[in-house]
Amino acid sequence: MGNPQPPRWTLNSEPLTAAGFMGFGDVIDTNRPDLATLINQGYAERFGDLARIDTAHAGGRPMISIYRAGPCALPLRLRLLERHRWGSQAFIPLNRQVFLVIVVPPDAEPQLDRLRAFRTAPGQGVNLARGVWHHPLVALEAGDYLVIERAAPDLAVDCDEQSVPSEVWVER
Amino acid sequence: MGNPQPPRWTLNSEPLTAAGFMGFGDVIDTNRPDLATLINQGYAERFGDLARIDTAHAGGRPMISIYRAGPCALPLRLRLLERHRWGSQAFIPLNRQVFLVIVVPPDAEPQLDRLRAFRTAPGQGVNLARGVWHHPLVALEAGDYLVIERAAPDLAVDCDEQSVPSEVWVER
Repeated sequence: MGNPQPPRWTLNSEPLTAAGFMGFGDVIDTNRPDLATLINQGYAERFGDLARIDTAHAGGRPMISIYRAGPCALPLRLRLLERHRWGSQAFIPLNRQVFLVIVVPPDAEPQLDRLRAFRTAPGQGVNLARGVWHHPLVALEAGDYLVIERAAPDLAVDCDEQSVPSEVWVER
Repeated sequence: MGNPQPPRWTLNSEPLTAAGFMGFGDVIDTNRPDLATLINQGYAERFGDLARIDTAHAGGRPMISIYRAGPCALPLRLRLLERHRWGSQAFIPLNRQVFLVIVVPPDAEPQLDRLRAFRTAPGQGVNLARGVWHHPLVALEAGDYLVIERAAPDLAVDCDEQSVPSEVWVER
């Protein structure tokens, strides 16, 4: 569990940026207009190839779902982290609703002293790289999310869970 | 080109439903609550596995982009159809904006007498099956779309185009 932690501590969210999220996965947004190209006879712009969808391990395939999430109130006590060892997992809000992305770098066990909380701006989604420990989706507003994750051919569940032994709160 | 067509004719859109869209691909929506399952300790619902993402042909991978499309005015004259022979292509609106999906069943050449126009309801997306002839995205409101399509390892372009020889209009 890394450095010893006090029995109770708080974490504040930071704005989600591609630079800050490096090592955790991809930010899916339109914040790089320099990468946009005109398509369809100039009628649309494409912000291309925004995420590394990593679902092919051992015969896996990309699975598309919609998650309908209720809102979470802050401060929020973190009780559980999970990771998917064999696949990436993308969350894209379908109504520009904002959410928190709470992550720890990939490791055998989550190093709680390396917890980070990112707050999305309207229109931003994320793609968690495989192996990244993360809290289940923390929606700050109710809404639907498109989720792109790995389905295994035998529907084997790829989810490790780890309870959070200390009292950790996300304040804002 | 199938049956001879009059030099000018019009097409009206119909509401997008899974049954009507059969053979063209998948409707991505939450209209089947009977298929939803509770996840994340009851805090979210998952509408699972809504689309067949078909991008693996010849070393292909799923590519995630955002298309920013301007609005199209109706009536609209159709001038061009295209198809992607080796991959599916999904369009999911990111702000519940509505759009038209104009398609022809897969065939060597588009059979214009089999043209269909589907109008989405707010919150609906589609996944075009590979090989389906379709008009480029017809957004009725400006907005962003998440697009999931195939990228080939050599970035070979998989797009056949066919001009529409008759004067075909989508009226509404």
